[in-house]
Amino acid sequence: MPRAELATVVESLESALPGQVETDPELLRPFTTDRSGHRSAGAPLAAVYPRAVEDVQAVCRIASEAGVPIVTRGAGTGLAGGAIGGPGEIVLSVRDMDRVLEISGENRLAVVQPGILNGALNAVLAEHGLWWAPDPASKDISTVGGNIAMNAGGLLCAKYGVTREAVLALKVVLADGTLLEVGHRTVKGVTGYDLCALMIGSEGTLGIIVECTLKLQPLVAGEITTIGAYFGTLEAALGAVAEVTRQGHVPAIMELMDRPTLDCVARFTGHTADGAAYLLVQCDGPGAGATAGQVAEILRAAGARAEVTTEPEESKRLVGVRRGAFPALEAMGTLLVEDIAVPRDKMGAAFAAVRRIEEKYGVMIPTSCHAGDGNLHPTFVFTGRDVPQEIWDAAGEIFATALELGGTLTGEHGIGLLKRRWLGDELGAQQYALQREIKRVFDPRGILNPGKVFSE
Amino acid sequence: MPRAELATVVESLESALPGQVETDPELLRPFTTDRSGHRSAGAPLAAVYPRAVEDVQAVCRIASEAGVPIVTRGAGTGLAGGAIGGPGEIVLSVRDMDRVLEISGENRLAVVQPGILNGALNAVLAEHGLWWAPDPASKDISTVGGNIAMNAGGLLCAKYGVTREAVLALKVVLADGTLLEVGHRTVKGVTGYDLCALMIGSEGTLGIIVECTLKLQPLVAGEITTIGAYFGTLEAALGAVAEVTRQGHVPAIMELMDRPTLDCVARFTGHTADGAAYLLVQCDGPGAGATAGQVAEILRAAGARAEVTTEPEESKRLVGVRRGAFPALEAMGTLLVEDIAVPRDKMGAAFAAVRRIEEKYGVMIPTSCHAGDGNLHPTFVFTGRDVPQEIWDAAGEIFATALELGGTLTGEHGIGLLKRRWLGDELGAQQYALQREIKRVFDPRGILNPGKVFSE
Repeated sequence: MPRAELATVVESLESALPGQVETDPELLRPFTTDRSGHRSAGAPLAAVYPRAVEDVQAVCRIASEAGVPIVTRGAGTGLAGGAIGGPGEIVLSVRDMDRVLEISGENRLAVVQPGILNGALNAVLAEHGLWWAPDPASKDISTVGGNIAMNAGGLLCAKYGVTREAVLALKVVLADGTLLEVGHRTVKGVTGYDLCALMIGSEGTLGIIVECTLKLQPLVAGEITTIGAYFGTLEAALGAVAEVTRQGHVPAIMELMDRPTLDCVARFTGHTADGAAYLLVQCDGPGAGATAGQVAEILRAAGARAEVTTEPEESKRLVGVRRGAFPALEAMGTLLVEDIAVPRDKMGAAFAAVRRIEEKYGVMIPTSCHAGDGNLHPTFVFTGRDVPQEIWDAAGEIFATALELGGTLTGEHGIGLLKRRWLGDELGAQQYALQREIKRVFDPRGILNPGKVFSE
Repeated sequence: MPRAELATVVESLESALPGQVETDPELLRPFTTDRSGHRSAGAPLAAVYPRAVEDVQAVCRIASEAGVPIVTRGAGTGLAGGAIGGPGEIVLSVRDMDRVLEISGENRLAVVQPGILNGALNAVLAEHGLWWAPDPASKDISTVGGNIAMNAGGLLCAKYGVTREAVLALKVVLADGTLLEVGHRTVKGVTGYDLCALMIGSEGTLGIIVECTLKLQPLVAGEITTIGAYFGTLEAALGAVAEVTRQGHVPAIMELMDRPTLDCVARFTGHTADGAAYLLVQCDGPGAGATAGQVAEILRAAGARAEVTTEPEESKRLVGVRRGAFPALEAMGTLLVEDIAVPRDKMGAAFAAVRRIEEKYGVMIPTSCHAGDGNLHPTFVFTGRDVPQEIWDAAGEIFATALELGGTLTGEHGIGLLKRRWLGDELGAQQYALQREIKRVFDPRGILNPGKVFSE
């Protein structure tokens, strides 16, 4: 688009949202990247900070008329480049739409604007004895709107579900400024197609989420019991995890770290690890203590040295082993955190493939895993800013492995920019084409987050 | 379509699926109705009984080429006329696709064909210590595929969720015979749009479900505690329900019957009811006994005469009061069972509106309610086969009330034929149009269940 036309667009934005438009390239710089480390080619045209639904509608009308792309952005904590803005694009930041509009204990729901941080919301809800379950590792720094746009996962999904299960309804502004209300304020509701579920995880490509009606749970009561267990081999740990599931236990958290991860942590902290794999388990809710006792027995029978505690400080230490992984890896260089998920009985095969790929490419791929739901994070460490080609090649082999094992490219981080070239491998040509057509129904001119999820 | 052409279609079907095509009008008669009591204008062109995915694809190709509608049908237990076939239509019955293809304890999933009955599946799963949670009242006579096509609800949704939360992946045949695999075999998965969720509840209008990967849970362990409580007023009962929720309890079942329902049951059984409202509560899982104790205390504080038991026979008696409602009503005449859902704090207002509408129209509208999730079943009793106009008028006012209260036309029965004229009232013109466009993406010629959900 000619520069003069773009200038007109900025003028229109400034006149519609006075004082809420940023055009200083230096202040726009943060929008060119996210936590994936990926960078766009340069600063976006402008960033807008709507405060109300009407502001979002005004931006959409202006952008739609001019054919200028809109990239909706929460806190920029994405790991797949899904909310990165580049030249000629408008970044729509929901930063200033961060209010809690309603909390209803009797309806077990909250209505919030999309820009509120997950952690901040949960702090407010806790005062009412309520809880919004989505629990991505980023929860203290990521927005509710971003969690929904990504269908965020986290540590608790095997027991408490993914974000989709915790959203009742959404208000969404479409590319042309139309305001749509999808979903229901009720627990049940089956009128027409479930466009609320369709919107969840659509990564800003179908509409802009401007209000979220969230399904809440009562705060989980009682003591949390934590187990930290070192195993002599990863296989023994996975065998124990399988047995826990087979016996019908549902721990809230089951996190597994492999030997390369433990080695990195050891190098970082100076303390040698006590085994080749570490399993962190937490049980909560009614009967947590009894369940934890049975789980610990299973782990020990599989050869683990397991500590069990309800004491907060001890628990913090056991959880700390897992929490230490990311900082330890970050200290070694730039990270590419991958995110495959496989059926639970294929975790062993997935880890074995990671080891084979490590050897083939001569790289280390420390891998931690949400063992309760089969979501692995093989992590590449490299120097410099850009992912080297051989690391992409290795990552590509990991994705192929996930698909061969009946799994998926991405369990919780999304496609964004980083994985769009592999999307067709998972969906197949026919479903890929169908999804593109659905995109066109919502956004015929293709101005919402173009180039994300689908390659242009 | 000219009769000769239709004959050609039947010939093609018979040649593609030898011995699996029914054309005897007498044997096609059952397909002209379902449990809604609604009837189509006459027998369908034919019924086909595919045994494999390829059979379904063949039927779709034939129908697609000739432009003949396909009505997919499970066990015909629908309450909204969603699976009724009429003249010139092919009924595709999944009766003979009823196999369990896989049960995996370690992955907590089962893969089944759509025609298996929910109850039959759960009997098999129970032997493995597993459970598929969707629990519509029809579960012993309704199919898994039908439950999914309808996003079935039931008694347990407040605690265990609706059907959507219990489906991981689907194989779906599109109108043109394309086989699509949507969803994931994994707990988490965020590649592209969630077409699996979109398919759930789409009432046979987007595709034909031919294989279902179901998310299972371990069988709920421990004793079930049952509470049966009579209240002097409905308001007192609703107050107690609200307090149960406010205090953070999550019973598995919370069912409420109003005085007209109790009166009908009393007339049917000869035993007078002991109050103006009956509340049935069941608590299960770890801590069930303690929770039930606290719930019973809340009910008694609200003035209830409450019985609490873990004894199976006693429990059966308390549950029997609720189970007796439908037979008692059925004995009085033909039923139109309505199905609104409202936010939980609006249940009182919804019941009050039902009483006003009773008075205005001079009809009795006994109403039972899934009180844990705000789903009311106002039920009309009339003589003859067709719903009288004044009853439609009264039902229309009930739907309008549900929408005014922030609720929905249908919590779990669906739109089908019966409610399509009100669908636009809930969706609004813009969303209605958008949903129609999505339908066109999947089924451009409009041959899948035309006239259902959307008016032609």
